[in-house]
Amino acid sequence: MINVAVIGFGTVGSGTVKVLLQNSELIKERTGLDIRLKWIADLDIEKDRGVKLPEGVLTTDAYKAIDDPEVNIVVELIGGKTKAKELILRALRNGKNVVTANKALLAEDGYELFKEAYIQSRELGFEAAVAGGIPIIKVLKEGLVANNIIAAYGIINGTSNYILSKMTKDKIDFNTALAEAQVLGYAEQDPTYDIEGIDTAHKLTLMATLVYGIPLYYNEVYKEGITGITPEDITYAHELGYKIKLLAITKMIDGEIELRVHPTMIPDNYLISRVEGVFNAIYIRGDAVGDTLYYGRGAGDLPTGSAVVSDIIDIAKVCSNGKSYAVRMDNKAYKIKKIEDILAMYYFRFSALDKPGVLSKISGILGEHDISISAVIQKERRKGEAVPVIVLTHLAREKNVLEAIATIDKLPVITTKTHFIRVENQSIG
Amino acid sequence: MINVAVIGFGTVGSGTVKVLLQNSELIKERTGLDIRLKWIADLDIEKDRGVKLPEGVLTTDAYKAIDDPEVNIVVELIGGKTKAKELILRALRNGKNVVTANKALLAEDGYELFKEAYIQSRELGFEAAVAGGIPIIKVLKEGLVANNIIAAYGIINGTSNYILSKMTKDKIDFNTALAEAQVLGYAEQDPTYDIEGIDTAHKLTLMATLVYGIPLYYNEVYKEGITGITPEDITYAHELGYKIKLLAITKMIDGEIELRVHPTMIPDNYLISRVEGVFNAIYIRGDAVGDTLYYGRGAGDLPTGSAVVSDIIDIAKVCSNGKSYAVRMDNKAYKIKKIEDILAMYYFRFSALDKPGVLSKISGILGEHDISISAVIQKERRKGEAVPVIVLTHLAREKNVLEAIATIDKLPVITTKTHFIRVENQSIG
Repeated sequence: MINVAVIGFGTVGSGTVKVLLQNSELIKERTGLDIRLKWIADLDIEKDRGVKLPEGVLTTDAYKAIDDPEVNIVVELIGGKTKAKELILRALRNGKNVVTANKALLAEDGYELFKEAYIQSRELGFEAAVAGGIPIIKVLKEGLVANNIIAAYGIINGTSNYILSKMTKDKIDFNTALAEAQVLGYAEQDPTYDIEGIDTAHKLTLMATLVYGIPLYYNEVYKEGITGITPEDITYAHELGYKIKLLAITKMIDGEIELRVHPTMIPDNYLISRVEGVFNAIYIRGDAVGDTLYYGRGAGDLPTGSAVVSDIIDIAKVCSNGKSYAVRMDNKAYKIKKIEDILAMYYFRFSALDKPGVLSKISGILGEHDISISAVIQKERRKGEAVPVIVLTHLAREKNVLEAIATIDKLPVITTKTHFIRVENQSIG
Repeated sequence: MINVAVIGFGTVGSGTVKVLLQNSELIKERTGLDIRLKWIADLDIEKDRGVKLPEGVLTTDAYKAIDDPEVNIVVELIGGKTKAKELILRALRNGKNVVTANKALLAEDGYELFKEAYIQSRELGFEAAVAGGIPIIKVLKEGLVANNIIAAYGIINGTSNYILSKMTKDKIDFNTALAEAQVLGYAEQDPTYDIEGIDTAHKLTLMATLVYGIPLYYNEVYKEGITGITPEDITYAHELGYKIKLLAITKMIDGEIELRVHPTMIPDNYLISRVEGVFNAIYIRGDAVGDTLYYGRGAGDLPTGSAVVSDIIDIAKVCSNGKSYAVRMDNKAYKIKKIEDILAMYYFRFSALDKPGVLSKISGILGEHDISISAVIQKERRKGEAVPVIVLTHLAREKNVLEAIATIDKLPVITTKTHFIRVENQSIG
């Protein structure tokens, strides 16, 4: 049993608690770990966060949680610097492992914390501190551990990216886009940290330390925000074939390291140029792996909670030190859906003689099989010759599709076996 | 000291050896681990693989390596099924940890291997078996461990993606594109595994087991290759707003799991539609994290070597069980480059009165500061009013840029402080 105390029950805190409670069965199945939420500490324990809590976990006394001998992992999610630092140090000195999402604290004052963690032989996880739900810390520390990192570029502030995307799409100016972001909750009332590149610089500081093993050089990061970008800049950039993004950049050139945050023009056919709205993406070039990119939500309760809980699980594995499965394979009888039973949209390429009523015949047979049409292309018309008739459908069952095609392919006007391709446009982002 | 034996010195074997040897200092710095390449076994130990090896590591006798009591980790990279399986089982029974890139073996016959690893309490790493250099196994097993996975879609066969990309770009047919891929070494002489979706199905099988904890259901995967796709299909798909990609799809709907590999039409504004050539990408939707995407090279000696070595390091950490740093921070004095010293391309927006000779004056001053122009936009011309003059430069030093602007901003024809944006178009993929 691994006991967890969450300190701070705000957005990230409640996301963390939701993921931990709602997916506890899944986590136990996957890892064999029994992780118990023992404490949630917050000054406000009355407000409804929309999550059903076990009896007796709420407390207004953070020390009660941090000093509890049963607690293995303390999760600091109060934000800010002074108090958070005190709590983390106290937890480490109590022999607890710590997880935090506090990028400002780590970037500006992390040396003391990481040192204390090392002295105490405890873990200090911070996956949630950079790029929210994207497991970029794990990718850098473990996945690409064998690589010299040649360069890293990140869109790692959702607020700025939302504002720039909005300015680009709606051709509006910075202030209008900022106001919209504030209404939607994508920007804070005081947006300084986000729009001036400070938040981005905090995250870049942490990434650069992982990438190059350098100290936390937050004060050396060049910071320039997006307030100076005009709709004209965006238009001219577009004419020149570029997009404007707020990038965090670190690269090593001839033994010197660059650390900079500023609006950057990037060719608009690059994958990272397509990252829009509040999404984040980090492009990493390693000497062995080459070009890689990681994309996802950089903020929000559940995405950030996903990252916090992954840290909790990593640490719980170390704490429990149990026998681990290389791969978990249940004996549960899962039903694998037969291809005939799937629902999909379909593209059909019929080859038909160009005679009157062909389309009506085809669409009639499709209709009899509960297949409805969303688009048709029928272009060239050469009398007596076969022409392609292209049909795109709404969702249909594959079994019906196969039956319809079998019937259609028997029509005298159909000259070749009908070809079809499945379409996915619903759940792919 | 962790001793590694690499069995199979082909493409992936030599990539693994290169990464391990060339980045050994980096790996030691980052992890504190001393990893020694003790054996490389291959039938052909004469051929030059372009890598300088330590004395005495080559052997033609795989058993010598696998039975060596000093060896901690056996890396199986011979491919194929029968012999590879025998070697892996023997290594596990000898108490070795194993790393393999053998997706066909694992997908079709992995149960026995994973079971043996579990019985022996040994690790069986296979990061390199899916999507080459992209650390997708780690992402699924650890990074997104707290998520119910709603759906996963992968472009995980570089050969097929190269052929489809080529057919799309050059409007050529399947056979022509395949022949080109073969000439370039992107397709094998017998391309069946790649173009019929078999390789993709192997990888999907492994991903689905990680995602849903189901047995290795390779035989249940619906497989359809790309040989039926015509240039016309690609053209019609384009007219309808879609791209055609060979996708591996797994999703859970109402307790039933879909496992399918087939050409799929995807809206062309989706990020995954932009994945071209031999690149791979996996889109994962989790219930907490939402939409994420992972992109990189799915094959090749060094990218796959990067993944193999990350497995070796993960296992070596478990073997050595030493004190670990949450974050490594060297005391090395690294020089952080000042922003004035960087080299970049620049976008300038000058506000100038529309008088004759303005552009010549500006470009003259830029030239005096070693800044050469690659593009100019100067559009509207209203006499006596300020107009924007947009200039894009080649690589220049920021110090020179700042000096040039200071001089230009003093010109009487310049009405407002000049705005500039840095441009990155060289090292971002």
